[in-house]
Amino acid sequence: MERIRIIVLGASGYTGADLVRLARIHPAVEIVALVANQKAGQTMADIWPHFMEADSLPPLARADAVDFGTADLVFGCLPHGASAELLAGLAGPRIVDLSADFRLRDAETYAEWYGVTHPAPALLDEAVYGLAEYARDLLPGARLVACPGCYPTAALLALLPLAQARLISPDDISIFALSGVSGAGRSLRETNLFCEVAEGAAAYAVGKHRHMPEIEQELAKAFGQDVLVSFTPHLVPMNRGELETISVRMTPGAALADLRRALDERYATEPFVHVLPPGVMPATRMVRGSNLCVLNIFPDRIAGRALVVVAIDNLVKGSAGQAIQNMNLMFGLPQTLGLEAVPLFP
Amino acid sequence: MERIRIIVLGASGYTGADLVRLARIHPAVEIVALVANQKAGQTMADIWPHFMEADSLPPLARADAVDFGTADLVFGCLPHGASAELLAGLAGPRIVDLSADFRLRDAETYAEWYGVTHPAPALLDEAVYGLAEYARDLLPGARLVACPGCYPTAALLALLPLAQARLISPDDISIFALSGVSGAGRSLRETNLFCEVAEGAAAYAVGKHRHMPEIEQELAKAFGQDVLVSFTPHLVPMNRGELETISVRMTPGAALADLRRALDERYATEPFVHVLPPGVMPATRMVRGSNLCVLNIFPDRIAGRALVVVAIDNLVKGSAGQAIQNMNLMFGLPQTLGLEAVPLFP
Amino acid sequence: MERIRIIVLGASGYTGADLVRLARIHPAVEIVALVANQKAGQTMADIWPHFMEADSLPPLARADAVDFGTADLVFGCLPHGASAELLAGLAGPRIVDLSADFRLRDAETYAEWYGVTHPAPALLDEAVYGLAEYARDLLPGARLVACPGCYPTAALLALLPLAQARLISPDDISIFALSGVSGAGRSLRETNLFCEVAEGAAAYAVGKHRHMPEIEQELAKAFGQDVLVSFTPHLVPMNRGELETISVRMTPGAALADLRRALDERYATEPFVHVLPPGVMPATRMVRGSNLCVLNIFPDRIAGRALVVVAIDNLVKGSAGQAIQNMNLMFGLPQTLGLEAVPLFP
Amino acid sequence: MERIRIIVLGASGYTGADLVRLARIHPAVEIVALVANQKAGQTMADIWPHFMEADSLPPLARADAVDFGTADLVFGCLPHGASAELLAGLAGPRIVDLSADFRLRDAETYAEWYGVTHPAPALLDEAVYGLAEYARDLLPGARLVACPGCYPTAALLALLPLAQARLISPDDISIFALSGVSGAGRSLRETNLFCEVAEGAAAYAVGKHRHMPEIEQELAKAFGQDVLVSFTPHLVPMNRGELETISVRMTPGAALADLRRALDERYATEPFVHVLPPGVMPATRMVRGSNLCVLNIFPDRIAGRALVVVAIDNLVKGSAGQAIQNMNLMFGLPQTLGLEAVPLFP
Repeated sequence: MERIRIIVLGASGYTGADLVRLARIHPAVEIVALVANQKAGQTMADIWPHFMEADSLPPLARADAVDFGTADLVFGCLPHGASAELLAGLAGPRIVDLSADFRLRDAETYAEWYGVTHPAPALLDEAVYGLAEYARDLLPGARLVACPGCYPTAALLALLPLAQARLISPDDISIFALSGVSGAGRSLRETNLFCEVAEGAAAYAVGKHRHMPEIEQELAKAFGQDVLVSFTPHLVPMNRGELETISVRMTPGAALADLRRALDERYATEPFVHVLPPGVMPATRMVRGSNLCVLNIFPDRIAGRALVVVAIDNLVKGSAGQAIQNMNLMFGLPQTLGLEAVPLFP
Repeated sequence: MERIRIIVLGASGYTGADLVRLARIHPAVEIVALVANQKAGQTMADIWPHFMEADSLPPLARADAVDFGTADLVFGCLPHGASAELLAGLAGPRIVDLSADFRLRDAETYAEWYGVTHPAPALLDEAVYGLAEYARDLLPGARLVACPGCYPTAALLALLPLAQARLISPDDISIFALSGVSGAGRSLRETNLFCEVAEGAAAYAVGKHRHMPEIEQELAKAFGQDVLVSFTPHLVPMNRGELETISVRMTPGAALADLRRALDERYATEPFVHVLPPGVMPATRMVRGSNLCVLNIFPDRIAGRALVVVAIDNLVKGSAGQAIQNMNLMFGLPQTLGLEAVPLFP
Repeated sequence: MERIRIIVLGASGYTGADLVRLARIHPAVEIVALVANQKAGQTMADIWPHFMEADSLPPLARADAVDFGTADLVFGCLPHGASAELLAGLAGPRIVDLSADFRLRDAETYAEWYGVTHPAPALLDEAVYGLAEYARDLLPGARLVACPGCYPTAALLALLPLAQARLISPDDISIFALSGVSGAGRSLRETNLFCEVAEGAAAYAVGKHRHMPEIEQELAKAFGQDVLVSFTPHLVPMNRGELETISVRMTPGAALADLRRALDERYATEPFVHVLPPGVMPATRMVRGSNLCVLNIFPDRIAGRALVVVAIDNLVKGSAGQAIQNMNLMFGLPQTLGLEAVPLFP
Repeated sequence: MERIRIIVLGASGYTGADLVRLARIHPAVEIVALVANQKAGQTMADIWPHFMEADSLPPLARADAVDFGTADLVFGCLPHGASAELLAGLAGPRIVDLSADFRLRDAETYAEWYGVTHPAPALLDEAVYGLAEYARDLLPGARLVACPGCYPTAALLALLPLAQARLISPDDISIFALSGVSGAGRSLRETNLFCEVAEGAAAYAVGKHRHMPEIEQELAKAFGQDVLVSFTPHLVPMNRGELETISVRMTPGAALADLRRALDERYATEPFVHVLPPGVMPATRMVRGSNLCVLNIFPDRIAGRALVVVAIDNLVKGSAGQAIQNMNLMFGLPQTLGLEAVPLFP
């Protein structure tokens, strides 16, 4: 098999490292360069515990020392802002960007939520929103793919079939989300310290999380109208995993069975998205380390409402795994290639 | 100070043990007997790691070997059903029951949710619902106090001031809750094993949790009308702590500032319930091991809605601590007596 | 590639499940039957969170309903005693047994430590002790392989090169070990409950652990004389992982550099065993979910002594992964086949 | 009761905060000032989750803004170096220093291990080493007390009775230690991040930990000769707690029963140190949040050796709790005053 030559920008963050973890054993990938400006000159083994034996990986390099022309594909795992700035100047390789920079269609919305002027607004029209299960037709021809945020991935997989079928109301969607701590990255913040997190649970960024406009943008497309959602993330003491419990109001005439059927049908043949049997609770331990998404729907006690529960691994289906899935689809490979691993439990 | 002579029924469960932990250093309490039928003859040190040095505690005894007539107060920490059965026959001591048996006013509702006929329906009228901050007037004269469930304690402390002032709508309350594993008790169930819980997070009992009718009963009193709430608990990998994020619809004309003011005013002088400054997120680490409740209110992105977030320690304010608080109020003691400990962090 | 047809006995335990996790994506394996008498009739998805999507796996069956003649290899993941009993009657397929039954050469030692008469002593001579890095020559011809215990795997990988070169004294070896909770299995014991383990750390089985005679047996072969070791395991609050810090006395004339060189040389070309650069601390997070072993050696403050530190994933290199590695070597496959996954971190 | 007026230096670290936690409910203490130069002007509630309700505590102040003359006692919870520098200039109040600055008798040893010249060597002779159970006679008259390190506290409580009775050999003591993460403080280091620690276990500072010379100094006094010990600490994923498994060689003629008797007798009347019944394993969950120390002794498999296992809460008996215990003894109070809390479990 001819290998896709990839470069990973930002290999010193959890997302970048998880991408390398997956890419390293992908049968159709060759890693030609790993970029991490602050850590240039070091090896992955120097900065990561789990790459102790990875002698064959290229050492970390500065972006300006890398010949991007040799790559077929660049994965961007840089922080927002920095990502678009660097990627805007890249000619040649195709791009899967895992930052937030190319997810929002509208530069003004971006500026409002991210607090900076978009560095490359001209590219926004071109970017494909890479929620793989819904972007399949566009990915083969895409040059620039924006990998969705972790929370939006889970929320949209749960809601899009219901929104598209108009089985739920667009103006009354409340998303309660739980995330493991890896979602906060490897940055040195007091709130990320073990002792601050262990034996603790708290909401954060209530009413302010940057994944809200992204969820709304994609739901708006599905509903054909503007949407505002309530989204409240919580941090819980675990490394990986994301769980969302979503409260929806069913449209008049719709019954829970209709919603279940819509989900069942939409995902019947999807390899990564599984609607669980009635009554089985989605849990993050069902997907740890894998590209899977498990979801289920339950009746709510309040008449006319329903609860959709969905779980993913925030670093895999919510980030690096979906990026690989996007790559597979961009390059005409089976979408599961390199992503077959069973979740790690316990 | 003359001491209240107490007996603890069910000292072999987490709730009973936490009650003994608190009672042991309470300056106005004397523990005269500890009951645990299955463990009779053993000491607390035999069955609990944290009572290694507690030589002075009475050994565990069978209920039928205990002279209840010697006690001023019995704390019931038995499972529901068993609790009412035993307590119904007790004459003499006053009772604080931590089981679910005397929380619901209506024996039929009890039968519906707990799957058994109530063993002592004649006592239901007499029982005082011991949400301490709201039962203060009744407790001094009470013979039988039903200590609220952990989830209802948090939910009601957050919602009652808003309901009583009619600042929120009774028909659109969604409670999203997180709990540490101690809430599930010390029973040998696969779902309570370390490996099943660590690195996992999941919803459970969706639409079926027995704390729902209890929340509804008390909210109905406050609203003056029947109420149904949506309540979705989740299990997260920590020992103690409970966090609820509650989505409410404000009544027309009400603004977030009105809700905040109602909470601020209601709890201004309460020693255990603290409305945090605007923007500060309640977290379980703020209350671990203590009888405190912290709460706050936030604007929701959906117009007309608000989010109330509340945290307690499920075993203390949600159970054993509130039981002690009830005892203090029943016996005319300062309600904080023996409950002054600062939370344990980290 | 022609596939090895395997049967897994005991797929309802953590070890069996991890073996299925690895076997399921192994390119040269076909799983023809999964045995779990107590769970017969259920699917892996029914009893395991991480096999939700594994429709293609055979359902769990009773041992007596399985045609072992169709298999090339049987993996035994049953408890000791039960394992030998069942495996003794098997004709046809080759066997990798992950229980303790065929590890000890001597039926009397087995009886002494396991408290039962060995069910199949006649097979003990035939069994190959499958510490893969040291059994490589014997595995291609082996019919019955005894997969080492998790603690012995780590200890022996650390000590055998030093023992064989007589760089350490046989009579003064103290092994201090830490293990995640999965090592205790999925059985319903109070000590395995989340609340009993989280925020806890304790030694267990001091002076009594059954892995001691196994370590001693293999060290005795290397030293050419009887050996007694001190071995103290501790349980710490994590799912997977095993760390051993081993205190050794160097033989007169030997220096730390000699010990390091012996380790370096022995493992220079081993794909799974990595001697870390001087000063780098082995940690379980370096190997989580993988078949890797990392080790290092440090000077001790007491003159003439040294400290060897070694980490593995107890369920992989310490059990299921090594079983697969053994299979690869038995069937002439590259030993890393199916075991290439990078550790999962975080 | 007349209250001891205390000032806490360094209230912004875990140790300082735990001291305030304990002091706040101590019936004989009045907190007159809290010092934290970097956080001056903020309140404890601003920087700590568990002081949300602590309105009555003084705000954090700069050291130079505090009138130390008003205090009876100063607790030093500053980092080493900074502590001695500030405390050397204090006239008036008595001092309990929790830093390492006054633990070592010898300024050269200090310089060697801490890498700096001792800021106040003239005070070293005066300082009392405050291992409370062994300093009881000196504490009433002490002006300056050096609170022992957490690891030395556990090690010395386990070893001193054996050393004093010459039941163990001074030249063959190996201490394997486990610690929760709070021991590393609240500093922003990558190794303290939740994701780096959770599901991880590793040794650290092998052969280099600064608590070694402290253990050796005190053992040397007991043995009446120089001592070198092997000490290997490990970090495990929990907040609090310290466990040490200590391998000792018994002196010729000594039997395990002699060692047990020496421990039993020495601690028979100590309120905080408990020798567990034979066979019961010390565990950190037995002491969490409390000033207790539990220990036990076990036969080793290697003839002539024994294993002593000891557990404390590193922040309490290992630090802030012992500081309070020292204060009690310095001021003629019952040593358990304010330290009666039962451990928090689960």
